Amino acid sequence: MPQKPTIEDIAQLAGVSRGTVSRVLNNHPAVNAQTRQRVTEVIEKLSYRPNFSARHMRTDSSNLVGFGLLTDEVITTPYAVDMIRGAQETLWKQGKVMLVVNAGYAREMTEASLEALLERRVEGIIYAAMYHRPVELPPQTAQVPVVLANCFAPDGRYTSVVPDEVAGGYAATKRLLSKGHRRIGFINLGDPGLGTPPPLPAANGRLQGYKNALMEYDVPFDKTLLCYTNGQPQTNYRLAHELMQLPDPPTAIFCGNDRTALGCYGALSDLGLRIPDDVAVIGFDNQLDIAQGLWPPLTTVQLPHYEMGRWAVEYLLSAKDGSPPLLHHTIDCPLVERQSA
Amino acid sequence: MPQKPTIEDIAQLAGVSRGTVSRVLNNHPAVNAQTRQRVTEVIEKLSYRPNFSARHMRTDSSNLVGFGLLTDEVITTPYAVDMIRGAQETLWKQGKVMLVVNAGYAREMTEASLEALLERRVEGIIYAAMYHRPVELPPQTAQVPVVLANCFAPDGRYTSVVPDEVAGGYAATKRLLSKGHRRIGFINLGDPGLGTPPPLPAANGRLQGYKNALMEYDVPFDKTLLCYTNGQPQTNYRLAHELMQLPDPPTAIFCGNDRTALGCYGALSDLGLRIPDDVAVIGFDNQLDIAQGLWPPLTTVQLPHYEMGRWAVEYLLSAKDGSPPLLHHTIDCPLVERQSA
Repeated sequence: MPQKPTIEDIAQLAGVSRGTVSRVLNNHPAVNAQTRQRVTEVIEKLSYRPNFSARHMRTDSSNLVGFGLLTDEVITTPYAVDMIRGAQETLWKQGKVMLVVNAGYAREMTEASLEALLERRVEGIIYAAMYHRPVELPPQTAQVPVVLANCFAPDGRYTSVVPDEVAGGYAATKRLLSKGHRRIGFINLGDPGLGTPPPLPAANGRLQGYKNALMEYDVPFDKTLLCYTNGQPQTNYRLAHELMQLPDPPTAIFCGNDRTALGCYGALSDLGLRIPDDVAVIGFDNQLDIAQGLWPPLTTVQLPHYEMGRWAVEYLLSAKDGSPPLLHHTIDCPLVERQSA
Repeated sequence: MPQKPTIEDIAQLAGVSRGTVSRVLNNHPAVNAQTRQRVTEVIEKLSYRPNFSARHMRTDSSNLVGFGLLTDEVITTPYAVDMIRGAQETLWKQGKVMLVVNAGYAREMTEASLEALLERRVEGIIYAAMYHRPVELPPQTAQVPVVLANCFAPDGRYTSVVPDEVAGGYAATKRLLSKGHRRIGFINLGDPGLGTPPPLPAANGRLQGYKNALMEYDVPFDKTLLCYTNGQPQTNYRLAHELMQLPDPPTAIFCGNDRTALGCYGALSDLGLRIPDDVAVIGFDNQLDIAQGLWPPLTTVQLPHYEMGRWAVEYLLSAKDGSPPLLHHTIDCPLVERQSA
């Protein structure tokens, strides 16, 4: 690998002293225009980069980096990458780059990742979670503005932005009710053995939204229509199969996410049932490769990943101009109409 | 937001001068143990962080950050996130964090992102592309070791690691041939109107592998069995439909990626054809949500994203100890056996 050019190299090539190069780098006025020009040309020619410490003594902050984004595994899984896109695109409008670090779930790695971002003087930090959940962050975060995306602090000490899961569950169920369905199966996220939702906003909130919509239409809640999947493809397939074997089977199935809908499509196809004529299916997430790729394309509910990323950056930008209040902001999960329901 | 503590704050609370605090921060020997202890306690209590420039003047490199990863859109799309995981997990074994920046495809943003990483003194850079393609990088990369992942420099000036597309196309086709199929449709990636593969390694390489396998089995290449998809779900569905309407239709379909296979499943289901009994289907990518979620689960070919990320980090680690040769390294695309072929 080539050696990095030094101030000495610049000085020698430009035929000036080291001190003159240094003065040019620091925009010192005591350099004549011709010399400045010559030194600048050599600097560009060598792609010389003053080291970071020298630059910081001059400017005290980088011009290029805005915020840092720390995540459990958003950038190593396919589900929530739009949060990164929403955040970066919003920040780029300010001409700024976002540094991203993937930390997993272990405390040691999370602390080291946070240290790495703070050391590099990010002006604010977004902590983004792959799935909607409570989080605890190391105490070092007190040093810069922080916003949590797709997660929240149980004690409310950080501003957070999360999906409105109840509204999403309501939108999906209401869509089916408005199409005339009254027997609506719900394959929720959770443990098939326990028969109760896990203590997570997605499972609890969507179930609440399902019940709210049923109540609005005076349809009694029937617990035989509710089941839980652990997310395994075979489980998704089996549960859809079992729902259709009920003495009074559903005419529509609300799936806890789009992967569940994929298994549901497989089961209905094997039973010779057509979507949506025989059974309507609705998903959750709007995971595009699946929702658009299925045949017929899947009606589903949008998780607002892009909007959460955008909102998080806008909040941090507002924090630069003052001290915005602590917020717990929810973003709607709108229905995406396709052809399965 | 709280103000960051300063050296003055430390000095005041510890009852010492600013100079003493500075000497403690710099591990200067001329501070007695008791004073050092008192200052250190205050530093910890306030979570004081010396600013980056001051630290760098002392240590000249961060302990936490290893390499930077610059990408077009790996972390904002669901397809190649395993490269990030492979790279980070390998680097973390060294106790190091990886800074990631998403730059899109515009030159301005790529340069700014690269600057941001270089300013923060990463020891090496991985440029990771979302799809296998030639890339040109800005000249600033000359300052640190660079490795390209899932992409390559046409002039060979950077080391690169890419999938062996020919071997992947060969593995898929050979699987079908070995199961007795002789009429094998191939929905390759490209432009349906042009009827030739785009100048990209994935399309060209997999087609070459398909032809190589046919030749090995003495099966003549039949161009009516070859078509191209633009990746749109409707196109995938339509092309599979059209292949099955041929006077002598295929008994197996090799799909250019797993999304194509998803559309193919839809078409075959609508035609009342069972997989794999009536028609075998094989994909490419091993995009898990689709490949595992489809019914029957999809036999496909693995894109070695994780392995490319790991290899890239290992190469950069070897570059720290010397100057490794420029390489163009290919990684195998192994068959993943499930139930569709």
